This record gives sequence, C-alpha cells and structure tokens, in this order.
Amino acid sequence: MSEKITIRRLSERAIADRDQIYEILDDGFLCHIAYLRQGRPVVIPTLYARDGDRLLLHGSNSSGFVRAVRDGSPLSIGVTHVDAIVAARSGFHSSANYRSVVVHGRGEILEKGEKARALDLIVDWMIPGRVGDIRIPTEIEMKQTSVVAVELDEISAKVRTGGPKDDPEDLDSSTWAGIIPIVQTRGEPVAANDLEPGISVPDYLTSS
Amino acid sequence: MSEKITIRRLSERAIADRDQIYEILDDGFLCHIAYLRQGRPVVIPTLYARDGDRLLLHGSNSSGFVRAVRDGSPLSIGVTHVDAIVAARSGFHSSANYRSVVVHGRGEILEKGEKARALDLIVDWMIPGRVGDIRIPTEIEMKQTSVVAVELDEISAKVRTGGPKDDPEDLDSSTWAGIIPIVQTRGEPVAANDLEPGISVPDYLTSS
Repeated sequence: MSEKITIRRLSERAIADRDQIYEILDDGFLCHIAYLRQGRPVVIPTLYARDGDRLLLHGSNSSGFVRAVRDGSPLSIGVTHVDAIVAARSGFHSSANYRSVVVHGRGEILEKGEKARALDLIVDWMIPGRVGDIRIPTEIEMKQTSVVAVELDEISAKVRTGGPKDDPEDLDSSTWAGIIPIVQTRGEPVAANDLEPGISVPDYLTSS
Repeated sequence: MSEKITIRRLSERAIADRDQIYEILDDGFLCHIAYLRQGRPVVIPTLYARDGDRLLLHGSNSSGFVRAVRDGSPLSIGVTHVDAIVAARSGFHSSANYRSVVVHGRGEILEKGEKARALDLIVDWMIPGRVGDIRIPTEIEMKQTSVVAVELDEISAKVRTGGPKDDPEDLDSSTWAGIIPIVQTRGEPVAANDLEPGISVPDYLTSS
C-alpha cells in the first residue's frame, strides 16, 4: 500500500496524520537538510531530535547550513527509513518499502537557555538517559555549537508497505516475488580504548 | 578520525579518493536529492545506482524532481551510512560514526536504449542478479519512467570512524564512553502472498 499524507498549515483534521508523521520522525535521528547557497541547493546529513512541534538540528557555527539559516534560507528536510526491498516480477513494479517525511520551513537559531536545553534533547534523542551521565557543556563549547529549530508546520509523509503489486498477467510467472526486509539494529556497546577500568555499560544502553 | 575528501573537476591526484567515495556509494541504494522548485530547495528520497562515473536516479515522469531536471535545476545528492553512535563523556564530543557523500551537478534525462539499460542497472543494484529473472518492460512502462543521470564530477565525502575523542580533563570521569554500532542487515526473503506454489527463493537472494 502506498500513501501520501500532507499537512500544510495544520488543520484540526490532520492531527491523526500528524501523529503518524511524528512516529516516523521518532524512529530516526539522521536527516538530510537542503538549503540554498548562492541560489543552488546543497544537501547535508545532520543529526536531529523532535521537540514537540519542531525539529532541532545540530550544527557547527561555521557550517554552511547554519550560515544559510542566518541568511534566511528556506530549508527542506528529509527523513527516510527503508524497511524492505520489494522484488516484483517486473522492473516497473520493483520498489522499496519505506517511510519518509519531508519538512519545509525556515530555521531559527536558538540562544542560551533554549540552546542548552535543545542540546540536551539531541543527546538524549540518540541515547535516551545519556544526558544525566555526561558533564555539562562549557561556555566555549556552547559558543561553538548552534542549534536550529524548524517548526513542523509544512510537512508531508510517504509510506509504502506490503508485498509487490504485480500486473495480473504476470502472476503466473515462474519468477520468485516477495520482499527482502531491511533491518537496522543497535549492536553491543564497545568501550572506548581510554575508558577507566571498572566502569560498566550503563543500564540505559543495555535495556534498549 | 574525521576527514573530508573533496573532488572538484577531477584531478589525477584524486583518483584514490574517488575510489573511496565510490565505495561509499556502492554500499547504499537510497539517496536524498535536493532540487529547486520556484527558487526553494526541495529534498526527496530516491533509489539510485552507480554506473561508472555517474549516478542513475529513478523517477516518475510526473515527479517534481524529473520536472526540475528538465528545467535545468542544479541538484545536490546526499548518501549517508551511519555506522555507530559515539557516546563521549561530554555532549560536545558526542557524535556519530558515518560515511557520507554529496554530489553536485545537473541531471540528464536518459532516452530509449540508454534508459532501458539504466533501469536494468537500477534493478540489479538493489538485488544483484535480479534482472535476468524478471520480464522486460513494456513500452508504456518505459514511457512512464524516467532515469536521470548525474555525472560524478563535483563530489565530496565525509567520514568519521573510531571511538569518542574526549578532552584530556574528562578522561578520569566515571561515565562510560564508547560507541554503539548501528548495523543494517537484509533479513530472510518473504514470499509474496500471490506467489505460485513451488517457486523457491533464487540463489542470488540467499547467497548475499
């Protein structure tokens, strides 16, 4: 089943769909951001977190992306999970099962208290529970880092699930058809070479 | 270790780096393409294949992406693999291990014989060996599908590997530090509901 959900300037009706879109965002932490540089699109991968009705995007102060946000560049942000390769009996119907969200908007560069909170959220987004375990950022670190917030205002999603949808005349083919699942998993944590002896892997890393 | 490799208008010196960039591209099949629509960037996920020194991108004739290529839009194409989450003792040094490539260029819409060959390459890119097993496209299917080729001319790559790089003064912290590997695997093939009985999973799907 292939479906497209679009929300533009959120209406009441769209709340259910919004939940579905947020589930897709909540399943990932890597996005591809497109911004304008001298009138041309530039795409870069970046880590994100969702904070209610906005995305938080992490960047270095000196990055092209943060400079583009400062200059008011429109942004387009894509998050995609591939769940399976779909092997149909024809090339035309061969496909992939995926869940993807695209967000359009402009970014706001967060300052001070809001930035500190956002950085904590981004750390905890990757590893829930981590923030309580690491030292707080120094002033210099805070100055070197930017967080950009983008309102989840103009968002759309596309989802494909299920098996191949072959043409009726292809169904008696002797060719195998089906899906090959793609699975992304987290492996066993690997300690840093410079870890002090006797420090065990924290619960928040083993219970996930 | 974090490094950035950039090739612009390929020089002889860059050949080795180009191999490294191609390895990253050859490890994936999903890209995020950014193009211009009314002067604003739009990002979409799409399947790709590498064909020598160019990327082949699959699209529907009516898609915004293919229309933008026809209008001569500059493109920026990102491919990213996340290999691990890097859990440092500070938020500032927390990161991800990843391999990413960004390609800049314009697209060429392939026609007829070149398009047919490119579609075969895209099918075989997802599942090597598959093309010999499926029926050839009909004329109508060929008309509905576009393949865009982008020369791998202006390309850059960023790679981060290894453990956390904490500040010396954080190394005696009692906080666990290390990496959490992210692994993407292909699961067991799942037959389509409408598969004729007695058709077994082909070798090219089980031996990978």
